[in-house]
Amino acid sequence: MKLSNAVEWALHCCVSLSQSRRPVPSARLAELHGTPPAYLAKQLQALSRAGIVHSIAGHVGGYNLTRPASAITALDVVQAIDGIDPPFRCSEIRQRGPLAIPPEQCSRPCTIARAMAAAHEAWIEALARITVADLATGIDTDSNGIALAEVRHWLATSG
Amino acid sequence: MKLSNAVEWALHCCVSLSQSRRPVPSARLAELHGTPPAYLAKQLQALSRAGIVHSIAGHVGGYNLTRPASAITALDVVQAIDGIDPPFRCSEIRQRGPLAIPPEQCSRPCTIARAMAAAHEAWIEALARITVADLATGIDTDSNGIALAEVRHWLATSG
Repeated sequence: MKLSNAVEWALHCCVSLSQSRRPVPSARLAELHGTPPAYLAKQLQALSRAGIVHSIAGHVGGYNLTRPASAITALDVVQAIDGIDPPFRCSEIRQRGPLAIPPEQCSRPCTIARAMAAAHEAWIEALARITVADLATGIDTDSNGIALAEVRHWLATSG
Repeated sequence: MKLSNAVEWALHCCVSLSQSRRPVPSARLAELHGTPPAYLAKQLQALSRAGIVHSIAGHVGGYNLTRPASAITALDVVQAIDGIDPPFRCSEIRQRGPLAIPPEQCSRPCTIARAMAAAHEAWIEALARITVADLATGIDTDSNGIALAEVRHWLATSG
């Protein structure tokens, strides 16, 4: 079970975008995070399709968050990049073999599928409780307010 | 993010093994669940390496659970098959780019990695709360006691 590596880039990008007062070009975000530009551009497109960022055209264009960082959850970002399919997919083993249960008796998901779904739901709930604003606060606390102040300065003065 | 399909087979096999008073040959388990025998044999070996089942040699040999089904969690089985690596792996993006944070200031995991780890922990806790005995009880309840009674009868009389 593995999440796309792009989830990490996307979460960092959203935190960085939350620190900028103006749109940030994809290439600048790539430079800031030390990412190959084409790779990051692809992830920004996925965030855009999910309605988390939007792009503004023009020579002062770039990407913005579409709503406050406190209204974007880690789950929003993770699912924008990695999709919403649960990691466990039931193939109805109970309907196979010599003791197969008839399909008409299988309208309720199998106990095993329900247990796996409950675990996935716990994961979803944990990520839905954390916002991009919370992540920014955490990074600020970890760095005694330095890391994101530097990001804000860099985004405001370069490019 | 996707779990190995074999997780589903392994959970069903453990429930079935919990219903048998004698060792069950791998080929019989494969027949019961409608699985390719070679595929199931591989998963049983993984369960064996994890100490969940053991094999008994001889013409009445086969696989047994190594401990009561109430002492085997869904997490034990899932991790035996799919491994213990968390789905999110931090590549220390904070240490990249023009504002890279020096490694000596990164002894604590990044806020983003901690958030992802907390979600994984919630998933782990959910699966650690459910035992193979609970799954058997659920299947029994779902089928009004029929499904596992049939499994017990089939395992006791065939092969």
